[in-house]
Amino acid sequence: MSSTHGTLFRATTFGESHGGALGVVIDGCPPGLLLDLDAIQAELDRRRPGQSSLTTARQEPDRVEVLSGLFEGRTLGSPLALLVWNRDADASAYAPFRDRYRPSHADLTTDARYGHRAWAGGGRASARETVGRVAAGAVARQVLAARTDQPVEIVAWVDQVGDIVAGCDPATVRRDAVEANAVRCPDPAAAAEMEALIRAVRKDKDTVGGVVRCVCRHVPAGLGAPVFDKLEAELARAMLSLPAAKGFESGAGFASVAMRGSTHNDLFEPAPADDPHAAVLPSGARVRTRTNHSGGIQGGISNGMPVTLSVAFKPVATIFREQDTVDAEGRPTTILPRGRHDPCVVPRAVPMVEAMAALVLCDQLLRLRALRP
Amino acid sequence: MSSTHGTLFRATTFGESHGGALGVVIDGCPPGLLLDLDAIQAELDRRRPGQSSLTTARQEPDRVEVLSGLFEGRTLGSPLALLVWNRDADASAYAPFRDRYRPSHADLTTDARYGHRAWAGGGRASARETVGRVAAGAVARQVLAARTDQPVEIVAWVDQVGDIVAGCDPATVRRDAVEANAVRCPDPAAAAEMEALIRAVRKDKDTVGGVVRCVCRHVPAGLGAPVFDKLEAELARAMLSLPAAKGFESGAGFASVAMRGSTHNDLFEPAPADDPHAAVLPSGARVRTRTNHSGGIQGGISNGMPVTLSVAFKPVATIFREQDTVDAEGRPTTILPRGRHDPCVVPRAVPMVEAMAALVLCDQLLRLRALRP
Amino acid sequence: MSSTHGTLFRATTFGESHGGALGVVIDGCPPGLLLDLDAIQAELDRRRPGQSSLTTARQEPDRVEVLSGLFEGRTLGSPLALLVWNRDADASAYAPFRDRYRPSHADLTTDARYGHRAWAGGGRASARETVGRVAAGAVARQVLAARTDQPVEIVAWVDQVGDIVAGCDPATVRRDAVEANAVRCPDPAAAAEMEALIRAVRKDKDTVGGVVRCVCRHVPAGLGAPVFDKLEAELARAMLSLPAAKGFESGAGFASVAMRGSTHNDLFEPAPADDPHAAVLPSGARVRTRTNHSGGIQGGISNGMPVTLSVAFKPVATIFREQDTVDAEGRPTTILPRGRHDPCVVPRAVPMVEAMAALVLCDQLLRLRALRP
Amino acid sequence: MSSTHGTLFRATTFGESHGGALGVVIDGCPPGLLLDLDAIQAELDRRRPGQSSLTTARQEPDRVEVLSGLFEGRTLGSPLALLVWNRDADASAYAPFRDRYRPSHADLTTDARYGHRAWAGGGRASARETVGRVAAGAVARQVLAARTDQPVEIVAWVDQVGDIVAGCDPATVRRDAVEANAVRCPDPAAAAEMEALIRAVRKDKDTVGGVVRCVCRHVPAGLGAPVFDKLEAELARAMLSLPAAKGFESGAGFASVAMRGSTHNDLFEPAPADDPHAAVLPSGARVRTRTNHSGGIQGGISNGMPVTLSVAFKPVATIFREQDTVDAEGRPTTILPRGRHDPCVVPRAVPMVEAMAALVLCDQLLRLRALRP
Repeated sequence: MSSTHGTLFRATTFGESHGGALGVVIDGCPPGLLLDLDAIQAELDRRRPGQSSLTTARQEPDRVEVLSGLFEGRTLGSPLALLVWNRDADASAYAPFRDRYRPSHADLTTDARYGHRAWAGGGRASARETVGRVAAGAVARQVLAARTDQPVEIVAWVDQVGDIVAGCDPATVRRDAVEANAVRCPDPAAAAEMEALIRAVRKDKDTVGGVVRCVCRHVPAGLGAPVFDKLEAELARAMLSLPAAKGFESGAGFASVAMRGSTHNDLFEPAPADDPHAAVLPSGARVRTRTNHSGGIQGGISNGMPVTLSVAFKPVATIFREQDTVDAEGRPTTILPRGRHDPCVVPRAVPMVEAMAALVLCDQLLRLRALRP
Repeated sequence: MSSTHGTLFRATTFGESHGGALGVVIDGCPPGLLLDLDAIQAELDRRRPGQSSLTTARQEPDRVEVLSGLFEGRTLGSPLALLVWNRDADASAYAPFRDRYRPSHADLTTDARYGHRAWAGGGRASARETVGRVAAGAVARQVLAARTDQPVEIVAWVDQVGDIVAGCDPATVRRDAVEANAVRCPDPAAAAEMEALIRAVRKDKDTVGGVVRCVCRHVPAGLGAPVFDKLEAELARAMLSLPAAKGFESGAGFASVAMRGSTHNDLFEPAPADDPHAAVLPSGARVRTRTNHSGGIQGGISNGMPVTLSVAFKPVATIFREQDTVDAEGRPTTILPRGRHDPCVVPRAVPMVEAMAALVLCDQLLRLRALRP
Repeated sequence: MSSTHGTLFRATTFGESHGGALGVVIDGCPPGLLLDLDAIQAELDRRRPGQSSLTTARQEPDRVEVLSGLFEGRTLGSPLALLVWNRDADASAYAPFRDRYRPSHADLTTDARYGHRAWAGGGRASARETVGRVAAGAVARQVLAARTDQPVEIVAWVDQVGDIVAGCDPATVRRDAVEANAVRCPDPAAAAEMEALIRAVRKDKDTVGGVVRCVCRHVPAGLGAPVFDKLEAELARAMLSLPAAKGFESGAGFASVAMRGSTHNDLFEPAPADDPHAAVLPSGARVRTRTNHSGGIQGGISNGMPVTLSVAFKPVATIFREQDTVDAEGRPTTILPRGRHDPCVVPRAVPMVEAMAALVLCDQLLRLRALRP
Repeated sequence: MSSTHGTLFRATTFGESHGGALGVVIDGCPPGLLLDLDAIQAELDRRRPGQSSLTTARQEPDRVEVLSGLFEGRTLGSPLALLVWNRDADASAYAPFRDRYRPSHADLTTDARYGHRAWAGGGRASARETVGRVAAGAVARQVLAARTDQPVEIVAWVDQVGDIVAGCDPATVRRDAVEANAVRCPDPAAAAEMEALIRAVRKDKDTVGGVVRCVCRHVPAGLGAPVFDKLEAELARAMLSLPAAKGFESGAGFASVAMRGSTHNDLFEPAPADDPHAAVLPSGARVRTRTNHSGGIQGGISNGMPVTLSVAFKPVATIFREQDTVDAEGRPTTILPRGRHDPCVVPRAVPMVEAMAALVLCDQLLRLRALRP
């Protein structure tokens, strides 16, 4: 029901894949911010299809328009409405799906919940809905930069495709290395293998899943809360709300299960004055941890160390093979999709993961400021 | 900041581990429900410490009292306030932690956020906070039972401890098998190994992590939403809000990454009339999937199949060994915990995971009903 | 901060008076509703300026566009985004206000809160913002009609201008009588006096206040709640959120203060079968009250009788006389407004009051349905 | 449904008039506040019945207990749970109302909404519910004092009983003058008349309404918002949520309707350095208004001048006369209340109005702080 993310920095997205337009209304954006529209457009460009031969051929310019909330280049504190028109909304490929349910898609569950469905496209469940999130995330990043001493740096990358796992150190990954190849994997050898796998899978009319990993540097200590709004809980909700996401880890995540406490515990030590990663204690002392198995979050609250997380994406549901399914009357039938679909979603999921991280951190930062003396 | 879970079925917990009392206020509980207080008490009994030799020796009777919201045995629709007094709140073991931060605990982050901390115990970040959630979850289960044709059945169990993985089929696990041993693992052979491992780890003054898996049967199709309130997103947030949780999976989860779409896709087929697991289409037809890699959720909305999920818990941070840390002034020091702590949290996490699942499903069910003609 | 109204039927408006566009995103609109776009446009036409010689000359066609949420004429249950472009946004008249504060306007308080202000027009505080609300209210009315046995009927009218008070019976007022004259007062004699007063006031370069009264018929019993979400509380918030609103009454309102309980109490009696105004008891019996001093709400919950309320609007702040004020540096100066402004806001406030009533009732109706067995 | 007030300072009340206990859980209270429990108790003492011969004889000590959220005298930032036990809950007088509806009470509407009702007392709709609000309001006042340079001062008083209107200047009213008599009217002559009227009305087995007026001094400029969360809108909702409230005015309120803009407009002028009532402009200049018809709020946002408001309360519904009504089956019958009830609610409503004002201002203050650079 709710298309709104956040408590204070509230992003409400709207739009279906083949409707008139998509967008987002951001309520609660702090005023007076000199908004960099090019930076928003740049994120939309990273998200949009057709960037490389690995992704769908749908051609959408996805030019962002500002409808409100901005005056003389600065945010007003009133709702910032950002719009992207649907131009290349060719629904013809969807005609066969009007009365037949694509396996593992949202078509059937949408019908079960709403009883009425935009069959001409994936509707609201389409990855195209993330246009609004990515635009909002780009605004959130600018708020984070304006409201922190050390600008928060959010970098995501493809860490796994199929069974090919990259070897990247979250401490050092940079965005230019991520953007250096079409897979968005900063490990060049792994990237080449992943690209080959994606091409092979596509040739085989099949699809494959992947993992996006993300590090958020210079996150101030104190974000989050001890109970339902633990920072991990908010991040997990944000990430699992992305299309095709089926898993989330924070810090050592599932691997921590097999560890002993004596290994997993992150011991505290004084932080050097020039280390941007540190918690400030009430006494004013700056402290860091020797290791970071906690992924920058302890007891649901950031501890100043880099926040690290991973998101698992299942293989894309649309495969260009005939599959068994049922029709609207529940009768067995088959389906053979046409249209434009990625064989692997993770390269384009990278900016989505970053956007969701930015939305969570920005909202939490504003919430923390409300508490401060 | 927010200690409230839910949009319509809103549970607000309160209480610190060594304060006066803990509890929950449930606002939005449907009226007229004949409340089974014994069932609430039974869940609190499953959650409380001291149930077996595997868990902490803290002795808390944890008797639930109803302060409001109930009249002549039935819910009034007004806030249901449930209270448990802290009796065995021996804070003396915590005196050394007043000025020293326990590694990988919430002590330091609490100070970083709030600047003031209930050092006599884990405070709000303690697993003792889950008393309120477990009580609320037991109420949510009763609402789910009263408002669905086929009572929703939520069963969680310990699926992994350290590197010992159980072999259990989510389709058939029953609660009596879960409760048959102290580890709460329905695979007896694995349970025995897990128990041995936990004892060995404790003897070694160490701790170990684990995975709790959960299945929710007879969940009506149509729960969830396509964007930020995807059912997985809500479940992920709920689970990651549990103490020590560091990972979440839905359906095939991280394992789906290495699968091909042709394998992962769950094909639709007509559902036999006696199958409680089915989606009802607008046409009235009943449909199920042949496999359930999606874990009962597609496009963020339940499809009528069993909802399956896993939660990873890191090793308990309190180990009875001397560790390096810092004091309140940020100076290096060491710490050696005393007190009463579990070597492995997962046996007691089982009722917590079930409670959180119940809270999410109950809230979503009420939200769905609001939309219906 | 929050531009969102409602818990389940959530309307988020955006747009400033002289920005690119205004609109609303409605999240939580029930699916499958055949939306009457002409009815939405008709309400916008009632709201827009330039309808008569009594109102401002700003000429805005205010044609509504649907960007999302609708497919084949029916609501999808996904966010319904409605847009109106600003065409006649002549900001030149506002240049003198860039550095000088118009008395009793929102200019100064906007600067005090946000530090940055859309000086070219009234910005977010302009009555033009109500475009989004009126559009959303028109949708809410259609949901109310679709989800109640007896369509809820909401009729507002001008009950007072300056010291001229109309004599209208809330039990019988109809919309065609309201729309029969430019003042929107269904008492023709009072309407003529009001019109003369407004013309005289305008000639005098002054402005005058007024009262809008509203009756909501066929409101089901059971809407509202006993504490913070009392139906009157929700209505009061909604009405006081309208520009220039300074007072609210429910039922006998301030006049009830001088009444005795023996007079004010509304005695219950059986309701005839054909009376659409009645509460249905758990026993199935239908009951009404003999009088309606309570204005259809008792203990914060609707009792099935017509809901009646009044809203006081202060005189418009823009008068075409020179007034003392201060500039941005706080130095005394004078100001002489130009531009296009109504001498009296209430005729155009009529559709706004109706829209806000519809938004509150629709949200409450969905919330009631969630509770029902 | 919602028993929660506020966005950041969130007070959730619970409890029925004759249940086990009443209380409030405050989530989002800033940490580190040295809480004055005596001040909370003092407000509860002002609210409780039996303070004078003018009020009901129910004897409740209403001693507040802190269950959580406080450690070593300071708030933790975790939920502050405050509890008051019901001691003198004699339900016997209510037996006749089990199956008969008291006119103009919430009994019937409660049944219409919930289908189940705590007939032994007024349940959730009782004025006794305000125990939790008054306690929370006393905390909110302390937060306001701790987070503003000039402590916000909130003073309410009885301004009218029946047709007796006091002559009090909001600019100068002090609490000691309010507390100087049982009616809580700082105009001694009017107070005497009001007292005589209340006694006469009670002797006549009848009841009478009243108006409570309130002034909030030293409210920082910038609280509120331009749309749905206008400060007046939030205050109106808060006040209309009080039992028996039927009207709300801000500033000149309904009287502004008959004023001309040229009279009503509050002209700006520089504020002397020692005037605590002023808005601070972005330039740093301090400005006030010459008059205060706006009641300290313009465009929904506070302007630094005293915030003034009035609340109309209807006559108490319980009169000790036989009245016509219906029974649970909808059959005509009569009812003659017994029990303990005030003939006029307004003296005890004074601390309630102050508490609600404090809750609104505190929440808005925290929300403003989140926006600030």
